[in-house]
Parts: sequence; structure tokens; C-alpha cells
Amino acid sequence: MIYDVAIIGTGPAGVSAALTLKANEKSMIWLGSPDFSEKVGRAERIANYPGLPQITGDQMNAAFRSQCTELGLTVENRMVTSIASLGDHYGLMAGDTFFEAKCIIFATGVAAVGTLPGETELVGRGISYCATCDGALYRNKTIAAISSSARFEHEVRFLAQLAETVWFFPLYKNVGEMPENVKTMTSKPVRMNQEEGRISSLSLNDGETLPVAGVFCLRDGVSLNVLLPELKTENGHIAVDRSMATNLPGCFAAGDCTGRPYQYVKAAGEGNVAAHSAIAYLAEKE
Amino acid sequence: MIYDVAIIGTGPAGVSAALTLKANEKSMIWLGSPDFSEKVGRAERIANYPGLPQITGDQMNAAFRSQCTELGLTVENRMVTSIASLGDHYGLMAGDTFFEAKCIIFATGVAAVGTLPGETELVGRGISYCATCDGALYRNKTIAAISSSARFEHEVRFLAQLAETVWFFPLYKNVGEMPENVKTMTSKPVRMNQEEGRISSLSLNDGETLPVAGVFCLRDGVSLNVLLPELKTENGHIAVDRSMATNLPGCFAAGDCTGRPYQYVKAAGEGNVAAHSAIAYLAEKE
Repeated sequence: MIYDVAIIGTGPAGVSAALTLKANEKSMIWLGSPDFSEKVGRAERIANYPGLPQITGDQMNAAFRSQCTELGLTVENRMVTSIASLGDHYGLMAGDTFFEAKCIIFATGVAAVGTLPGETELVGRGISYCATCDGALYRNKTIAAISSSARFEHEVRFLAQLAETVWFFPLYKNVGEMPENVKTMTSKPVRMNQEEGRISSLSLNDGETLPVAGVFCLRDGVSLNVLLPELKTENGHIAVDRSMATNLPGCFAAGDCTGRPYQYVKAAGEGNVAAHSAIAYLAEKE
Repeated sequence: MIYDVAIIGTGPAGVSAALTLKANEKSMIWLGSPDFSEKVGRAERIANYPGLPQITGDQMNAAFRSQCTELGLTVENRMVTSIASLGDHYGLMAGDTFFEAKCIIFATGVAAVGTLPGETELVGRGISYCATCDGALYRNKTIAAISSSARFEHEVRFLAQLAETVWFFPLYKNVGEMPENVKTMTSKPVRMNQEEGRISSLSLNDGETLPVAGVFCLRDGVSLNVLLPELKTENGHIAVDRSMATNLPGCFAAGDCTGRPYQYVKAAGEGNVAAHSAIAYLAEKE
């Protein structure tokens, strides 16, 4: 099935877009964390969201979740790893699953996701963002896993079942127990090096170079220039006009990914506008 | 005192701007209806405001009002009738009171307020928007009052105490009892005519022409091109960029007055952005 709209992200912008698309009876696939926004959840107290006085981030997430559940909206707990234009619609790879949609609404939050020097050029040539998708390619090989959060430790353990050795670079504290063939490093990778167009080694911040057959980058998101290289960005944000349209037909964006101020109600407002613009785009195409 | 910001309007855009300015400890004068948005109040059920599921317009207004009251925010129940640039800040006439502010946030809602042909040119030359301000100028004269709502009937009665005759054009049903010298008309005014640069008569839709010394236009708002003629509009909306800045320094706009979609959360999001832009403008000026 080709959905009317794919929404990427479950923060206030994604929630707002989903509510408005639902009210307008559009079909949608909604990809992201079913726990809604981690960033919202961390907020101690939100003082300026109209209608929800002095709410905590957890309470806001709970309010959003119950509102969506009541309307029958569900979130696919998958991270989108790449997007391709298929002429009049888009294809989205999310883990090992492929989705198709006529429109995309990016509600991906602040682009905290950077890339390492050399990374972007090597995507698909030894660089992967999904252990279950690409792990089998590295059976009995030596690979590296760079992880931004303990939430990805199960992916590291999965890789350890296949690879001979996993050099593990956790970019967080309190790392969990790992199998014997996972070598947890305290140094940090700073560059990805290639040989004959494929990843060959990682340069580390202690001056060492580590030969690897593949690198898994396990992060909260995929850098936008990896996800959809044609998408125009400005200073790390998706460039949009007042209708939340990007430079690509049928692609809209809302919330922190479009720039400051990083505010909940700004994100929610933009999600609404992006949904209305997607609805107008769909009507025009019919 | 010169306030940091004057907010005009008490719909979701105005509420959101006020909450954010308050959280950032800016001084403000907030002008509009203390009952908050009449338009919001008329909404039967709002399906897509994130965080307030299936709320009625009255409930939303009540939520906004209590949130503002708890924070000590108060609304001045006055209609702004004209604005002038005073160099580095603005002066606002609201009824018979004058306010000064470094920034203005227009949150005036859909520009339902039109003007009659000939009206704009005659403001201050026989055309007035405020009975208590200008009524005394028409003692023992024959004037007209055009009113869009029963809420202005006390202004018509006030005019009747001063003027000899008030030709009264109510643009609504169920008109209340009026003094003897108020002549309630069923025809409608279609044009304002001038003689020697002052109002001379009203042309009516039944072909009649009615000589008058003055006309009071009693409406829910003042047309933007009367309020602040330098403010750039596009298709009846205030032209803004992504930061909600208008063409005038220190003037921002948010909500329905900036264009479609006419949605509560879009207005609230824009109010937040306008407030942040005003804060940045104030910081830069200091």
C-alpha cells in the first residue's frame, strides 16, 4: 500500500501532524519511538504551552500518547535509515521494512546527529545504521559499533553473535555487560578511512588506527544528508517556507528540525501547518 | 512607561505570546477582550489541538484564561484604534488611552473587518471608531452609526445623548431598544462621500443618500490599513517571514491575521515564535 503521508518523528510536531491528518481522514504511516519524544520527557516543567499549565515533560508525553491512542493512531517503532524518490512518491527503508508514501513530513527534532568525517561517502559500503538489516554481511569479521545510547546495546549483542570481534565505542556512561568478543573502548573514533571505495579502518582520538570490515553507527537518528541527500538544509536545519514545504515536492518538515526557537508549541503549530500543506498537495495531485 | 511589548488580541496567538513573554520576564500591555477569543468560544469541538483532546471552544478559552490568571497576566479590555511609529518605539491609541511599547505583536485574528469605499481616506475627518473618544465632537449634529454587533449598542446610546439624530445601521439581528432620536435603518450603507475633505453623506443600497456630519464605525476591530497604514499586507493578511517579523522594525504578527490554515495550534505556535523574535529584537536594541 502507498500511504498518503509518512510522518517521521513522534515529538510535538509529529503528534500535531498525525492528529490533523487523522481529522482529515488521510492514511499515514507514523515512524518513530512509541514512547514519544525523549527530549520532551526530560523537560522538568513547561511554562508556556497554551492550555497545559506548568506541565512536566512526562505529563505532556502522556497527554499526547493518550490523545493519539484514543483516536486509534499507532506508531511504528522503527528508525528510518534511507529515503528514495520513486517518481511520484517516496520509498522509506526503516530497519528491514520498506514503506511507500506520497508525502513525507519530517518531524525529526534537532539534528543532534552528526556524521564522522568520511562517513557519508561510505554509506552502503561498509557503513550501516541497522544491525538486524546488515549484521549478516559481517559474519566472522572484525567490525566496530559506535553507539549513542544504552538503548542500542541489544544491537551490539546481536552483532557479537555474528562477527568475530566487535570494537565497541559507547558514547555514554554506565555501559551494560557485553559478550566476550565485544571489546569496549574508551577512546573515540574521529575519522572513517577507505580503501578501494570501502571502509578500511577507523582513526581514533588517541592516534591509533583500527582496521575494520564494517562500522555500525547506532544513533537516535540518521543524519539528514545520509537519509535524503537531495533535501536542502541551512545551518543544520531543513530549509522550509511558511507552508513548511521543503525544496522537494511532497516533502514537508516541522518542529525543531526546521530551526529555532526549539519550543513545544512552535513544533506543534508547524506540524499542523505541514499536515495542511500535505493535504493540499495530495488534493492537487488527484 | 514604555512597555517592552504590546500584544493586540487574546486568541491562541496572543495567549501564547503572553505566556512566553511572561516566562522571559518582559513587560507587556495586552489589549483585547478579557473573555478571550469569541471565535474560539464558538468552536463546538476541537479535534486536533495536541494535549487537549476533544475540547470545546469554551473549555479551551477557560483553560487559557485560568493559565494566564495564575501567572498574573491581565488583559486591558480596549480596542486599539490607531498606531503610530514614534521613532524607536510605537504609540497605540486604545479608546481614549494612550500606550507606548518598543514592540508590537499583532494577534488580531482573521481580518473580517473590511472598510466601506471612501472610509480609509476620511479617518479623523468625520469617521471615527470610538464613541466615547469622539462623540463630543458631534453635539447636536446628525450622525450615523454602523455597528457589527449588539455589544456596541451602549456606544450608540451614548452617541444619542450628544447628537441630535443618530441614523443607526445594525449589521446584525435582534436589535435592542433605542432612544427616540436613534433611527434604526433596514437599508445598508455602501459608500462614504466627502465634500471639502470631510464626510458629507452616506450612499445606501436602496439608492438613497443620507447627509451626515460624522460616521461611527463600531466593529470588532479596526481594519489594518486604518490601524497602521505602513504595515505590509498580502491578500488581506499581514505579510510575515518565518520569524513572524513584518515589514516594520519591532512589529511582529501571529495567528489567523498572518494567513491560513486558520488553526488554533498554528496560531499558538506562531505566537510563541513572535514572542521569541520580539525578545531577540529587544536584546539587540539594548
